[in-house]
Amino acid sequence: MDSNDPLVPIGTIHTPFQTKEEAPIQGVFALSATGTVIIREELEPGLKDIDGFTHLILIYRFDRCPGRIGLVKPMLLDDAPHGILASRNPMRPNRIGLTVVRYLRRERNVIGIGGVDMLDNTPLLDVKPYVPRFDSFPEASEGWFSGKNDRPKPPGRG
Amino acid sequence: MDSNDPLVPIGTIHTPFQTKEEAPIQGVFALSATGTVIIREELEPGLKDIDGFTHLILIYRFDRCPGRIGLVKPMLLDDAPHGILASRNPMRPNRIGLTVVRYLRRERNVIGIGGVDMLDNTPLLDVKPYVPRFDSFPEASEGWFSGKNDRPKPPGRG
Repeated sequence: MDSNDPLVPIGTIHTPFQTKEEAPIQGVFALSATGTVIIREELEPGLKDIDGFTHLILIYRFDRCPGRIGLVKPMLLDDAPHGILASRNPMRPNRIGLTVVRYLRRERNVIGIGGVDMLDNTPLLDVKPYVPRFDSFPEASEGWFSGKNDRPKPPGRG
Repeated sequence: MDSNDPLVPIGTIHTPFQTKEEAPIQGVFALSATGTVIIREELEPGLKDIDGFTHLILIYRFDRCPGRIGLVKPMLLDDAPHGILASRNPMRPNRIGLTVVRYLRRERNVIGIGGVDMLDNTPLLDVKPYVPRFDSFPEASEGWFSGKNDRPKPPGRG
């Protein structure tokens, strides 16, 4: 495989959010927001045993992120400028997004999820089971996010 | 942006592991294994304030993963078959990998990291700060990983 091999979405994420203004800054700020993941039908066997997990990692594309990449910019959660790679902002190289969502239910290739923050019809690149032994580090530092709490999205910040 | 826009690696991950047989199954199984991330020089400003974090999320490409995608297969940590999307196995659609690593130090565009499990020279697609409020869910279920511990990699399982 070449590292530049094109990506083919494995499915689509459906959420209540049609515009970035409606979407929360992070999934944990909107745990009651639910959505669905529709996996391509031919990949359904690959979901075997996903039902035993409570949390899933979704890796997706910020496909409607406008504008050019700003390497240092004010952020949705902070007016001070930070590096784009030290942020979770969509306007980043390759525009890859990541959210840990709640697994709610599944019927064949349709997965119900909670705590969504992406736009409706977002192309899904991968779903992985969240395994706390591998992925949960409660002792990690929050860096510049420390003390920054949910707030209305400042306009024009992507 | 089109969701199929080609990816351009933002840098390269260097580790002690030249073959998959040498690499640990997960980074948490080899916390003493250290490596470096070399970010493309022109992106260095995008790292501003990354130094305040203790953990980073690396999203990368399993660029040397051989063979075809198996939708249901025995896993490195379990001889029973599971769905590829319910696993962390590399032989998955789009072959995107994710590891939470320790941030150790940085000099300009070179970041020292700990707890690496990827092969040397792995193409890096994105680096994000790990923020426990967004990413740490210690109460999450382990699903089929429950009770499955580190072991020698069974041959031929990708």
